[in-house]
Formats: sequence, C-alpha cells, structure tokens
Amino acid sequence: MRNIKLTIEYDGTRYLGWQRLGDSDKTIQGKIENILTQITRSKIEIIGSGRTDAGTHARGQIANFKTDSKMALSEMIESLNRYLPQDIVIKEIEEVPERFHARYNAKGKKYSYYLWNNAIPSAFERHYSFHYSEELDFELMDEACRKLIGTHDFIGFSSLKKTKKSTTRTINELSIQKEGDLIHFTFIGDGFLHKMVRILMGTLLEIGSGTLKLETIDEVFKSKIRSEAGMTVPAQGLFLDEVYYRD
Amino acid sequence: MRNIKLTIEYDGTRYLGWQRLGDSDKTIQGKIENILTQITRSKIEIIGSGRTDAGTHARGQIANFKTDSKMALSEMIESLNRYLPQDIVIKEIEEVPERFHARYNAKGKKYSYYLWNNAIPSAFERHYSFHYSEELDFELMDEACRKLIGTHDFIGFSSLKKTKKSTTRTINELSIQKEGDLIHFTFIGDGFLHKMVRILMGTLLEIGSGTLKLETIDEVFKSKIRSEAGMTVPAQGLFLDEVYYRD
Repeated sequence: MRNIKLTIEYDGTRYLGWQRLGDSDKTIQGKIENILTQITRSKIEIIGSGRTDAGTHARGQIANFKTDSKMALSEMIESLNRYLPQDIVIKEIEEVPERFHARYNAKGKKYSYYLWNNAIPSAFERHYSFHYSEELDFELMDEACRKLIGTHDFIGFSSLKKTKKSTTRTINELSIQKEGDLIHFTFIGDGFLHKMVRILMGTLLEIGSGTLKLETIDEVFKSKIRSEAGMTVPAQGLFLDEVYYRD
Repeated sequence: MRNIKLTIEYDGTRYLGWQRLGDSDKTIQGKIENILTQITRSKIEIIGSGRTDAGTHARGQIANFKTDSKMALSEMIESLNRYLPQDIVIKEIEEVPERFHARYNAKGKKYSYYLWNNAIPSAFERHYSFHYSEELDFELMDEACRKLIGTHDFIGFSSLKKTKKSTTRTINELSIQKEGDLIHFTFIGDGFLHKMVRILMGTLLEIGSGTLKLETIDEVFKSKIRSEAGMTVPAQGLFLDEVYYRD
C-alpha cells in the first residue's frame, strides 16, 4: 500500500477543529477524508500529527494516509485543492515509507501565537490574533520565557488531569517579536500538552500586565496546579506552523 | 455644527462596497451611518473620500460628517467600535474645520493590490489577494510601470464612458514588491477613475505573462479604448491605504 504525506494549511475560523467528530463536516480532518474518499473511491482515514482546537489555524499541519489508489500525486493534490473549501489548502504531497506515522514519528512542533496589542482593534487580524489592550512589560515577559525554556513537567500549564503518561516536555525556543501592534510569540518544543500553548500564553500575558508575578512559573512547576497559572487565551491567535520529523 | 473626520479600516469581504444603497445594511457607509444615528440620536450622513467596490478593503478610508452632538470624541470612537461589526473599525477620530470635505479636499490616494503568485493557493490570503498562477516577467512589468507613471488621460484604463469631466490623472508612484509568493503593487496618484487600479493591474499582469505587449500601454493612451487594455482583476486584492489632504 502507498503511504502518502500531506502538508496542510488551514484557516480554522469556520471549523470545530482538526479532529473528525462522527460524520460532521465541520472538522478539517472530516473535510479532507471526505474528498480523498471521493477521489480515490475507497474509504480513507488520515492520521494527523495532532489535534488543533476549534478556531486554531495551521500553516504546516502534517497528516498521512494509506491507499491502494494509483493516482499520480500531482493529480491528487490538484483534485484535493479543487474540491476542498478555500480555507483548507494542501500545500505539499509526498510518498513516504510505509512505516511513516504523522503522530508517532513527530519529534517536535512549532507554534505561533499572535496578540493585537492596541486599544483600537484590527479589522484584518480579528480572526488571527487575540485582541489584548493591556500595556505589557516585554522585559519581564522575556524573563518569563527564559524560565519556561527547558525540560519541565508542564501538567500545571495544561488542561490535563493527572495521568500515567509523562507530562514532561522540553521547550527549545520561546521568543517574542513586536511587529507594530501585532506581537508574535514563537514556541518550539518536542511536544505540547492539551491547551499548553494557550495557558503558557495566558500566563505570559498576566505576568506582562502585572496580574501575576514572575515567580508564578516556578510555583506552578512545583505545585502542578492548573488554577495557579494564567488564563487560557482564545484559540484564534494560535497557528500550528511546522511539525518536525527525523529524516 | 461640529465637523468630524473618521479614519476607517474595513475588511470588505462581506459588503456590497462603501456606498450606501437605500436602506441596505450591506454597505460600509450604511453600517457606520446607522450606528452614528443611534449614538447621536439624530440622522447622520457621512461623506467618504470616494467609493470602494464590493469586496475591496480599506486600511485608511476617510469620511466626515456634521453633527450637533456634544459627545466627547473618545466616547464616540469607543461607541462606534463597540457597535460596529468586527470587520469595520474606526482607527482615528478628529474634529476638523467646518470647511473640510472628505471627497472635495482629497488631493491624492494610495492603493495596494496583492497577488498570490503560486499554483498552490493560500488559505489565509484568499480574501485579500488575487490568485494568479502565471509566471511573471518582473522586469517587463517594471518597464510597464514606468510608462504608466506621470500625467495621462486614463479613460481607456477605466470603466467610464466618454464624459465632459477630465479623465486626466497623475500617477506619482507605481511599484512592485515581492514578499514571497505575495506580490504587492503600490499605486499613488492624485486620483483614480472608476476601476482604474484594477484595469491597470490586469494590464500589468497580461504584459508580465506575455498575453499583451508592452506597447499596449501607449496604444490605449492614444486610442482611449477600454477593450484594448487588460482584464479587470478581482476587487478582493485591492486595499485603499491612505487618502492625502493638504494640511
């Protein structure tokens, strides 16, 4: 059987998230599976590198699927992009070894989070950023980023209950870039727990605006208590940029 | 009476354009007038610097209106942005001399047009650019720009029929910038005829892709025949960036 890898870009605004929900047509996975099933004329299931929440976007989500179809890759990507709604685009298609698994083989991910940091909102960034007017102390947030980088048990910064699986993750990069009123946060790590990027973001913002102290980070690492960390910021500012695999 | 100037940003995707059409709620002007009428409790009419077509966006549309309302400007802009839909934003509000007229006093405008120039479309630029996959000769287009800059009768590059009013306009700047797959065209001039930017764009693209010759520009200046120029590109790639006034 052929194993095919897709690189997918989507504007998550209209969707309930990546993960298929029954027959719902309002998920990214469901949309792509339906079209693939039509064009290959056999039931296709795709495996994503991981879920994204309702409203979250992707510039480089990765998925793979197995098929007996002999269709050329160029024809397959063309058909996919012709029949998919315009807010979901297959950017690349590639045949990969049969053992490739988009979720199990992922060794890291890169996310972006965007903040619109001005009292006046933006007509164009409204679905692609979180409108947050508070004045922010960037030096303090940079310090907070340095505390978060490294290997830690991030369960207190996630929506997970106690679990037997490891909740230790490594953040390799966490940086902040001002692009005018748009503030761009970059997260690179070996994996992120459910809602982890959004809760880290909320914690950074509450530290930057003075609602939480810098020490909160160390305290949550110790206590592992979610409610001591910052808010969960909205999904709409979040982009899955890239998924990393060993070559 | 007070004369109040607004700087307006809008995502034109959902609208029939700037210009109010009867009681329609699907125009930018109509939306803003309705809210202003509600918050000042008297019928308000606003004067825009000019129309924009259905689907066209603005980062700096200018309008003014007269009112007897004593409301503070800070309260007015706050109320406007609270009640307007999120795709229309008042960026600035200012009290101006009674003689200021957003249309008559405009001495120039700046527009941007964006092209998505890759066979694979973009999920995020779909409403904010024209997806055009043809390969383009940028040197030839730069030459075409140089021919268009200056003072000319642009009637052949507009949707106007013969008119007694002058159709001579001056283009001061016309430049092309590659930003990855996104190509950004900037137009600055003392005024633009109806559909002029979109027809100039279509002409540039047809020259760049080899469908039209560079000489077409001189020929249309001479013949003044619209059908000899290029296509009218879609409105969705067009942004009204700025309106210039004498201080």
